[in-house]
Parts: sequence; structure tokens; C-alpha cells
Amino acid sequence: MTTRDASALLRTWNECGFYRLIGMEVTRADEAGSQFRLTVTDEHLQAYGTAHGGILAGLVDAAMGLAILAVVPEGEGCATVEMKLNFLAPAPAGTELTGHGRVLHLGRRLVVAAGEAHDAEGRPIAVGQATFARFTAAA
Amino acid sequence: MTTRDASALLRTWNECGFYRLIGMEVTRADEAGSQFRLTVTDEHLQAYGTAHGGILAGLVDAAMGLAILAVVPEGEGCATVEMKLNFLAPAPAGTELTGHGRVLHLGRRLVVAAGEAHDAEGRPIAVGQATFARFTAAA
Amino acid sequence: MTTRDASALLRTWNECGFYRLIGMEVTRADEAGSQFRLTVTDEHLQAYGTAHGGILAGLVDAAMGLAILAVVPEGEGCATVEMKLNFLAPAPAGTELTGHGRVLHLGRRLVVAAGEAHDAEGRPIAVGQATFARFTAAA
Amino acid sequence: MTTRDASALLRTWNECGFYRLIGMEVTRADEAGSQFRLTVTDEHLQAYGTAHGGILAGLVDAAMGLAILAVVPEGEGCATVEMKLNFLAPAPAGTELTGHGRVLHLGRRLVVAAGEAHDAEGRPIAVGQATFARFTAAA
Repeated sequence: MTTRDASALLRTWNECGFYRLIGMEVTRADEAGSQFRLTVTDEHLQAYGTAHGGILAGLVDAAMGLAILAVVPEGEGCATVEMKLNFLAPAPAGTELTGHGRVLHLGRRLVVAAGEAHDAEGRPIAVGQATFARFTAAA
Repeated sequence: MTTRDASALLRTWNECGFYRLIGMEVTRADEAGSQFRLTVTDEHLQAYGTAHGGILAGLVDAAMGLAILAVVPEGEGCATVEMKLNFLAPAPAGTELTGHGRVLHLGRRLVVAAGEAHDAEGRPIAVGQATFARFTAAA
Repeated sequence: MTTRDASALLRTWNECGFYRLIGMEVTRADEAGSQFRLTVTDEHLQAYGTAHGGILAGLVDAAMGLAILAVVPEGEGCATVEMKLNFLAPAPAGTELTGHGRVLHLGRRLVVAAGEAHDAEGRPIAVGQATFARFTAAA
Repeated sequence: MTTRDASALLRTWNECGFYRLIGMEVTRADEAGSQFRLTVTDEHLQAYGTAHGGILAGLVDAAMGLAILAVVPEGEGCATVEMKLNFLAPAPAGTELTGHGRVLHLGRRLVVAAGEAHDAEGRPIAVGQATFARFTAAA
């Protein structure tokens, strides 16, 4: 279905500013979905001492987006149209988060994806569903 | 309705790890809502060259949360239960974002808030709606 | 901006199956938004004795959709891509609901709208935000 | 975990006004989740000739709610706090819809559930995620 070079995809994204800023890494992206990792540090915390919603939203948004990029044709991109995320448990500093994304429905123009983050014990931390728009452009 | 010290509230949050990491600042939080600012830099970008969803989600989530903290009694906190956010326009590096949050419905246990981010020309960049849970704890 | 015949628009929709089934009526749809009315009856109730989420979702979805149809060119339609709705208060039988919809962002292909329902005392019952796709077809 | 009488639960809900109004039936609700059926008729249609969002939202909301009621202790109820739903494909009259709900996270006060509806060929029609509040009351 796609001959996209997965290692190039991962490299491109792992080098972008936001991934580096928050220390997030995509470790896999293929037709089965994507996998990310991020260890929560003091820099990710809000005033209550747990990871800010923006960190978890960034992780889950990215996981869904890369799951889509892994299955659309080379040269195509996708943009998050909207995202909905439930926060299930707090993630204090030291939490080793794993993020996952998968495509629920690949439309001609729009894609619906699901994503989640869990800790090292497999406890769910955040779970979401989002809509993306496909576009033709160099990634 | 509240005698919460607004300047202490702003100071506490502006010093937390996540706000500092992404360079976001709350500039006002009172019964009319909250106001934030964040200038998009290269560190906020995804691979397409515009602010990652995690940055915009963090800004809007924070704006809604601080709008709530400004109106609940001193000593009370709130946690994001879930958030939904539409992304309306891309924000490249240099974009001066202003975030706003306001309370839509203050329940006894749950609060519904709305938030948005716009650029210096007032163009809407992201708009969202979220549910928060009130809790009693030192902020 | 549009020469769409508002009375024809209202008539078409007020005659469709779903509006008749639940007794919902659109009373206005113009560039300022839409207005609907629906009085909650026993037929709308879930087992706890208040209006089912499907009734409130139907009302708010319709209010957003008609607000969009009132501003896009004649002959264009729109379909709900996704919808998010917060339920703020229960609506028992006899509640006279008014629904409102308004366009938040009219994109070339996608539209973001906000909608809400309140009772006769102006108390908010449900509030939502949704994404619609524009399409060219006879309404 | 629960000694709730499943057949009484199904009977109670299948007799409520909304289920009867739209012709929706819950056929199963246990610890594995819930199952619903609804055949789209002319009464469910919007002006474009496919099932209105309120029908699909009602079906998926109900499926998630009954999946929760099947696992909480007898005498406990749940109310939809908020719901997010993506519409994936249109459902014209005659479509035989099956709805499913399952619990994603059972918290002490809040529950996160997922739900979906598909047609007789298994094609997904709508998929959603929602937050419910548990409450103690006779169902």
C-alpha cells in the first residue's frame, strides 16, 4: 500500500523543534500504528506537580498523526483538524510514558484516528480521538 | 465571590515547569476570564514548520484552567477531565499568540470552560471546550 | 453574501423525518445564526426521566448545521464531521428548550460551529462545538 | 463484580420513551460491553436523506451508558457529562445499525467509555468517546 521510507519519516519528525523541546521520540510508525516514548521531567509539570495537559495532548496528537503518515502515500501530509482527549490519571515526574496511535477510518480527505498514552505499568494516562485532513505536500 | 490573590496565582503558575519550557505566560486571571501570551518559536514547530498541536493545546488548556482557578475559592484546584480543540489556522514561528479562557458552567464538582487562541491580527488559531473537575487541595 | 431563501430553507428542514419525529422546529436561520425550539415530552426521556442525550445532541447538531446552511451559497450543503457536546443540566418533560447555533470559522472546506440549548429561564442545558464539511449538492 | 439483573436492566431501558420513539433496542449489556440495534427509517432522516446526527448520537450515547450500567453496582446510575462523536459514513433508510459500547476507564466518580455504530456489512458509521458521572440512585 505504501513504499514510504519509515526510517526517514521517523528521523524527520524526531528532529523537529517540538519533539526535541519536550523530549518526545517516535520509535515506530507503520501500518499497525505508531509508538512514542517520553519520560516526564520537572519541565513538563504544571503547578500541581504532574504533567501538563499540553504534554499529554502533544504526545497523543503526534502519535495519531504519525500513524496516519505511515499509511498515506509518500509526499502526502496530514494536519490535525480537531482533537478530543480524556485525561485518566496524573503523570508525575519520572513517569515513563508510551504513546500509541492508530487509524480508525481513512477517508479520501479526512482521517479519524485514536491515540493513547500509558505508563510503564500499562496504566492508561490519556486516551483520545481526533480528525485529520490529508494534504499533498512534501513532508 | 472570591478573595483569591490573583497576583500570587499568576506567579505560581508562571513559575511552573511547563509554562517556562514553552515560554507561555498568564497575564491576567479574574472573574472575566484569563489571558495568556506565547510567541511561537522554532522550538514549538512540527515538521511542517508550524506550531505543534501540543503547544496550542497546552495554551488553551492552561487558559481554561486559570479562568476556573480565578473564580473558585482559595485553596481549591481543578484538573482537566477532557478537552476538545479545533485547530483553525497554522501558526508559524514569530506568531504572537494570545490565549483566552472563560467559564461556561461552574458546577459543584465539574466545570465546563471555553478557550481560544488568536494571533496579533485577531485571527482565530484554535478554539476549544473542556471539562474540569474541582478538588480541594493547596495549589 | 448570500441570497439563499431563508423561508425555503426552514420549510425544507422542518419537513424532514427527524425534525417531525422529535417535534423540533427551526424558527430562524440567518447570518446571525440559527434558532430552534423543542418542548421535552415523555417520548424524549431516558429511564431516569430526563431528555436523552440523543435529543439534545440532535437539537444542537441541527442548530449548528442550519447556522452554516444560512451562510453558505445556495445549493451548497454541509455534513457533520464530528461533534462534541457537554450536558450541563437535566431537562425533564415539559422543559421548553431553545437551541442556537453559530458559525465560529467558515473555512473553504471545513466549518467550525458552536451550539447550545437552554430552557425557558435561560438556564444552559447543553453546549457544544462541532466540525462540518461543506459539499456541493442540492439541499 | 456485579449481581445486577441484566434482563431487568435491558427491560427498563427498552421501555423508556426515547428508545421507543426512535425504535432502538439494547440486546445485550454485560461486562464485555453493550450491543444495540436500530434500523434506519424515513423518520430518522435529515433533509439529505440519511440518518440525522441525533439518531447516531443517541445510539452511541446509549450504548456507552448501558455498558457502564452493566458494570457498576446495582442501584447506581450514570449520566453523560460530555460526548464526542465522529460521523464516518451516511446511513440511508434501511441501514441496519448495530451499536456497541465499552468502558475504557472506570473511575470512582467519572467513567470514560467508547462507542460505535456500524452497518450490516460491518462498515463503521460513527465512533465516539465520552465521559460519564456515576451517581447513586434507583435506575
